[in-house]
Amino acid sequence: MTTREQAAALDARDPLAPLRELFTLPPGVIYLDGNSLGALPKATPARIARAVEQEWGQGLIASWNNAGWIDLPRRLGDRLAPWIGARAGEVLVADSTSVNLYKVLHAALQLQQGKRKIVVSERSNFPTDNYIAQSVVRSHGGELILADSPEDIPPLLDERCAVLMLTHVNYRSGRMHDMALLTRWAHQAGALAVWDLAHSAGAVPLDLLGAAADFAIGCGYKYLNGGPGAPSFVWMHPRHQGQVWQPLTGWLGHAAPFEFSPEYRPAAGIQQYQCGTPAVLAMTGLDSALDVFDEAAKLGGMGALRAKSLALTEAFIAEIDARVPTAWVATPREAALRGSQVSVALPSDIDSYAVMQALISRGVIGDFRAGTPALLRFGFTPLYTRFVDVVDAVSVLADVLATEAWRTPEFQRRSAVT
Amino acid sequence: MTTREQAAALDARDPLAPLRELFTLPPGVIYLDGNSLGALPKATPARIARAVEQEWGQGLIASWNNAGWIDLPRRLGDRLAPWIGARAGEVLVADSTSVNLYKVLHAALQLQQGKRKIVVSERSNFPTDNYIAQSVVRSHGGELILADSPEDIPPLLDERCAVLMLTHVNYRSGRMHDMALLTRWAHQAGALAVWDLAHSAGAVPLDLLGAAADFAIGCGYKYLNGGPGAPSFVWMHPRHQGQVWQPLTGWLGHAAPFEFSPEYRPAAGIQQYQCGTPAVLAMTGLDSALDVFDEAAKLGGMGALRAKSLALTEAFIAEIDARVPTAWVATPREAALRGSQVSVALPSDIDSYAVMQALISRGVIGDFRAGTPALLRFGFTPLYTRFVDVVDAVSVLADVLATEAWRTPEFQRRSAVT
Repeated sequence: MTTREQAAALDARDPLAPLRELFTLPPGVIYLDGNSLGALPKATPARIARAVEQEWGQGLIASWNNAGWIDLPRRLGDRLAPWIGARAGEVLVADSTSVNLYKVLHAALQLQQGKRKIVVSERSNFPTDNYIAQSVVRSHGGELILADSPEDIPPLLDERCAVLMLTHVNYRSGRMHDMALLTRWAHQAGALAVWDLAHSAGAVPLDLLGAAADFAIGCGYKYLNGGPGAPSFVWMHPRHQGQVWQPLTGWLGHAAPFEFSPEYRPAAGIQQYQCGTPAVLAMTGLDSALDVFDEAAKLGGMGALRAKSLALTEAFIAEIDARVPTAWVATPREAALRGSQVSVALPSDIDSYAVMQALISRGVIGDFRAGTPALLRFGFTPLYTRFVDVVDAVSVLADVLATEAWRTPEFQRRSAVT
Repeated sequence: MTTREQAAALDARDPLAPLRELFTLPPGVIYLDGNSLGALPKATPARIARAVEQEWGQGLIASWNNAGWIDLPRRLGDRLAPWIGARAGEVLVADSTSVNLYKVLHAALQLQQGKRKIVVSERSNFPTDNYIAQSVVRSHGGELILADSPEDIPPLLDERCAVLMLTHVNYRSGRMHDMALLTRWAHQAGALAVWDLAHSAGAVPLDLLGAAADFAIGCGYKYLNGGPGAPSFVWMHPRHQGQVWQPLTGWLGHAAPFEFSPEYRPAAGIQQYQCGTPAVLAMTGLDSALDVFDEAAKLGGMGALRAKSLALTEAFIAEIDARVPTAWVATPREAALRGSQVSVALPSDIDSYAVMQALISRGVIGDFRAGTPALLRFGFTPLYTRFVDVVDAVSVLADVLATEAWRTPEFQRRSAVT
């Protein structure tokens, strides 16, 4: 257990502490939901205002060239690349995570040339991944097979498996897969590995090239802080360059889009994953957010971020153990298996939804996920979360439970928060 | 021919003139490229700043409910509906035009149950439409057949034709199809009609329900002024509700997305065309732009907009005829066949690209499209274009040609402006 003074001392000597100053956080709020929507970087409003007022308002159509709009998908991809273990030129920012998953799953199945048609994933994967996979396997005459637990995955990697598709860090449990190991197992079985980095990028070390993964996609608005609905990213291992086809054949994935030629001819590399015109204002938010990561790189980069993230989640788990002993920590206690969030289940006679509403009413913002068990999720973005936040959040949780504040009628309704 | 004084008099009695005051336009610029990127509404910077600073920065994750983010795709669709001849509840704003075309083409071919697999379109359609169609017909084992001219379309509507897919107003010529007539011809042949309204929505009268069209998609950043890369819209005739399936089965198209159920079950109506999480900041720009259309509705609505648009394009054509007699007007002179742009071809010994660069350098912004013939495109957004702009633009063009200013070396390079 950590006293508030000890936590404050940890914050005082935290080498990443200056990064918190780069974010706007509402006063009185402990924000532990950056795994769902990252906080606003302080520089972003002015950056977006410039894009709106100068680039669009004054530059008008010429800004496609003069403000570099046309290059945003590649330029943001280049900026992201080092944070996911890829190289410049291999990553593209475009569309949504769901749409990018659709592209790479089709590409992966097409690489298997119809000889293998089974996609293996987890039942507890984020629904959109499994929904998209259901659609893609349907069009290839294949099948989606879902493992009930991580331990059930390896036996499914057999000679019929075309693609192993996993979310690296599970959205419910916060459990992290061993990307290198599972990719190797998939390859040994002749399958390809597609990784969804939605809950990883910006929060945990990633080495796509080192793992020799085949495809990856991820989200711009969680740990990357690109803003609500910020565009997604997509990566393909360079060994597949020129070998694949993806079906969303919009004009900006063409080898020469401004030739306006009648026949589609895909660009050679990652560019072929671009489809329509980039959402400039949304991309500008992500561009600004990546400036924060430039600062993080100067303060120790992902090594320092991961060390702090683990220290935060470890401290949170210890506080829960000490102060909310009836709670079950659904997230692995083993550091290597943990992302940057901790999920907590309460005894079933306690309405966890109402508990989260009570927490939010007292300024502790996590979120609630229905299911068995229902989970309280707490995200620990190392860029802006402090050790005192950990101690204070558990204090409030312990108090909400001790006083049964969650029984207050206003906390009982359901809502549609993502 | 119109004198500048006559043009100014037309502006003085233009009932829509107040709408220009709702836009920011750079001083000294005559902006005739709103058919490619609409101008910035004056209220948009503050509206986007509020979304960034208040809704995201202060409201954080709770803004999905509290600021109505989760409803944006449907709410913007409802706002757009009357401008395209649809009803509230039938239109959704999401993704890009290319991605939405992919969805509805798949849905249309699936409605044909494999009995018909041919998609008919025009060779001169905007490339992304034909590229997407090539991809979709490939996955259905079908074929894309391209008419060389509008007159060649009806003979292609036979018992093998599954879908007639057309852009209502051609991006090069500005020629407008008769949506009701061609839809009827398609239906009589047993085909479905898919309309791309990219160069129509916000500029010409549209009556999707009256035409009994099957599907429509369109662009948010041209005549609708939603900002660079603003999201697209998608419409499906209510008679197809519950009958179709589209392959981009992201979680927000699910009948009950927040149940997080393992099996995809499409929402009943237009909601099933939503895929991933909405791009909130991009949608906010379009939301703000639709406020301008609310004002236009008070001043006569689409009837008044169309009357002004035709008067502007007619005046422009008359000025070209009078002052640039060597130019060929590639846009139909018959009002019923004309959208809200005029394309002009110059004799082949004149470098049209350089002419457009010379015009831009003198504050007249249109754009250039390569091809045979190469075209200078001029868009006349009735919301903010004045009659004096028409006269002044042609004056500058006549002068650029008379003085051969386009021969200046700086105007000769090529660039990638969309």
